[in-house]
Amino acid sequence: MPIVYITRKAHFNAAHRLHNPAKSDEWNAEAYGKCNYPNWHGHNYEIEVTIAGEPDPDTGYVMDLGTLKDIMEEAVIEPCDHRNLNIDVDFLQGVIPSAENLTVAFWKQLEPRIRETGARLDSVKLWETPRNVAEYRGD
Amino acid sequence: MPIVYITRKAHFNAAHRLHNPAKSDEWNAEAYGKCNYPNWHGHNYEIEVTIAGEPDPDTGYVMDLGTLKDIMEEAVIEPCDHRNLNIDVDFLQGVIPSAENLTVAFWKQLEPRIRETGARLDSVKLWETPRNVAEYRGD
Amino acid sequence: MPIVYITRKAHFNAAHRLHNPAKSDEWNAEAYGKCNYPNWHGHNYEIEVTIAGEPDPDTGYVMDLGTLKDIMEEAVIEPCDHRNLNIDVDFLQGVIPSAENLTVAFWKQLEPRIRETGARLDSVKLWETPRNVAEYRGD
Amino acid sequence: MPIVYITRKAHFNAAHRLHNPAKSDEWNAEAYGKCNYPNWHGHNYEIEVTIAGEPDPDTGYVMDLGTLKDIMEEAVIEPCDHRNLNIDVDFLQGVIPSAENLTVAFWKQLEPRIRETGARLDSVKLWETPRNVAEYRGD
Amino acid sequence: MPIVYITRKAHFNAAHRLHNPAKSDEWNAEAYGKCNYPNWHGHNYEIEVTIAGEPDPDTGYVMDLGTLKDIMEEAVIEPCDHRNLNIDVDFLQGVIPSAENLTVAFWKQLEPRIRETGARLDSVKLWETPRNVAEYRGD
Amino acid sequence: MPIVYITRKAHFNAAHRLHNPAKSDEWNAEAYGKCNYPNWHGHNYEIEVTIAGEPDPDTGYVMDLGTLKDIMEEAVIEPCDHRNLNIDVDFLQGVIPSAENLTVAFWKQLEPRIRETGARLDSVKLWETPRNVAEYRGD
Repeated sequence: MPIVYITRKAHFNAAHRLHNPAKSDEWNAEAYGKCNYPNWHGHNYEIEVTIAGEPDPDTGYVMDLGTLKDIMEEAVIEPCDHRNLNIDVDFLQGVIPSAENLTVAFWKQLEPRIRETGARLDSVKLWETPRNVAEYRGD
Repeated sequence: MPIVYITRKAHFNAAHRLHNPAKSDEWNAEAYGKCNYPNWHGHNYEIEVTIAGEPDPDTGYVMDLGTLKDIMEEAVIEPCDHRNLNIDVDFLQGVIPSAENLTVAFWKQLEPRIRETGARLDSVKLWETPRNVAEYRGD
Repeated sequence: MPIVYITRKAHFNAAHRLHNPAKSDEWNAEAYGKCNYPNWHGHNYEIEVTIAGEPDPDTGYVMDLGTLKDIMEEAVIEPCDHRNLNIDVDFLQGVIPSAENLTVAFWKQLEPRIRETGARLDSVKLWETPRNVAEYRGD
Repeated sequence: MPIVYITRKAHFNAAHRLHNPAKSDEWNAEAYGKCNYPNWHGHNYEIEVTIAGEPDPDTGYVMDLGTLKDIMEEAVIEPCDHRNLNIDVDFLQGVIPSAENLTVAFWKQLEPRIRETGARLDSVKLWETPRNVAEYRGD
Repeated sequence: MPIVYITRKAHFNAAHRLHNPAKSDEWNAEAYGKCNYPNWHGHNYEIEVTIAGEPDPDTGYVMDLGTLKDIMEEAVIEPCDHRNLNIDVDFLQGVIPSAENLTVAFWKQLEPRIRETGARLDSVKLWETPRNVAEYRGD
Repeated sequence: MPIVYITRKAHFNAAHRLHNPAKSDEWNAEAYGKCNYPNWHGHNYEIEVTIAGEPDPDTGYVMDLGTLKDIMEEAVIEPCDHRNLNIDVDFLQGVIPSAENLTVAFWKQLEPRIRETGARLDSVKLWETPRNVAEYRGD
């Protein structure tokens, strides 16, 4: 049976700031530059979630994309959209919200919910800007 | 010698409907929702075909993209463009035209033609909408 | 007070066929080519609706884009999404669904609903493919 | 002599919140919904500035796009990029940062600098998300 | 009868260099910077041609987009694609190939051919890069 | 520790021509078609560089994207932008500038500089047009 990869995109708008509270202000300004400005900045984040699996012979679906959309909505979009990623999101407490750390945190949110449906999460990609992307594949 | 991956995109417009004729209307309405509406809907499909190989030392080409374009045209675009994928396409008879099944069917159309030129097909990707993609890598 | 133009985009997927039932099959095949194929084809339509007006001093809004989204949803997206534009849509009965005719028909759907909110409709744009667009400005 | 319109795009990332401090919290929550969340959200803003004029017979330029880029950088991008539009930007003090109000405020920043070069500002467009745009043409 | 605007996009790849042969090398280096480098550079040009008119009651078309595509192909794409705009194109002899001058030159190529079909050319837009655009509307 | 992939995009405009000087003009015309036209053509090239690694626990960064941007600028963009890839670029002497050969040549430029920072280069992708892409992964 063939293995097919399906991807669903979604987006959310959020504020954030790169800041390591365990370090000095000088260290933070040096490490992060403009991304450390105190009053936050923000992004139109685009998230791409890829699922791998065999298409169901009855439906032709690896997974119903409506179900995947609902999982993404509940696990990532609803808690993050129009929020401050440093302050407002329970599962990001203690996480420096770099694109890298966000993809790993989103994976942890998504993976058990997707596994529960019998599907396998393959990749989480996050576009912070049209020129900057991070991807986590679970390794 | 280096292995390089080259990708060519093409597009076609088609009508389809998700419907499993072996199942009841209730099952189909439940499984597919709006995608099961009786009078068809359609998409601007984007297909991406990736070839892997060593660049020819004389030409610098893994494969002439004009040849690849012609193969894609003959194997996929010409039979599918402005057509109904449930009715009009010989090689899709009996296939539920989900994005997943289409990528596998397109791979079967493309792979022998590409192999014949000495190149190796690596991936077939199909964008059903800008937010939904399926990919088949031959596994 | 400044006049500002705000635009909201939305999308829907639909099947259609260009066919003038008052004309012969030969005339239709000649006039429309592939767009006249009998079993329908389809598109990912993108619609852009532009409103003109003075920003409200209290809100900074020409019009709440959420209200505009709801009007577009109710007047255009809901009746057309995943539908056959030649068969399924009440307000398109008797309309040849060219991009040109669709923009005029969508204007007629949208304009009274938008006027009712006190805003002024400026333009309706419809992308049939990423390379083909029609626009109606009410003239 | 022909009149040609030239457009230059640029982008910046910023945090903001829609909030009218002259109104109650209830009014703000009702008027703005998610856009009023207290801890800010943000966007990848895209700004498009259009200049109208006759191409200079010596250069073929309506205006050197490098000069336009520098004016946009100095007047809009530098003060707004990675900033909080409600707090950090001098020329936005007292402005509710809706897309509508931002285009008017950016016009006021850009127009005198562009007029000084002998060119004429025609339009300022601001994309807050890929689906929401505001435009001000100076009327 | 409603006036509808239809737009067709096409693309071509070409080399060019901004250089005024009536001026000194110093003047050219100063006026054009990198765009004056002696051994040419190039672009993926995107051209958008907009036609205005009343939809034909029989076809629903302002103009057959296939006809428009053929006119664009013959008048602009064929002579310019994979060519050097300073050297190879008859109708660009003596024209400094800035985006501004190109849109005016393309208008002159397109306008009589479009008028001959009974349609009215409204606008020619040329994207030199995704961030730089010029438009000529015939004024 | 998780392995995350980060990607940075950049662009440059350049002229080139596909031509193998060891072969006859007839061979070249046959092998390359329009891409062999004598007076060059050009592209808006988009380059995507992907780095793999564990996010630094202090910064949350696999690699500072500003550092990656600077390396891309110095190794690829500065030498190639607004240049003729057959003539002007030292590290492309003797290379037929197909997209395939360019990705391999760019990898050789980028890989030692990236390794020096402690990061690992994963992939170099080059878009010659929005429909043609080449990728090299170092194998």
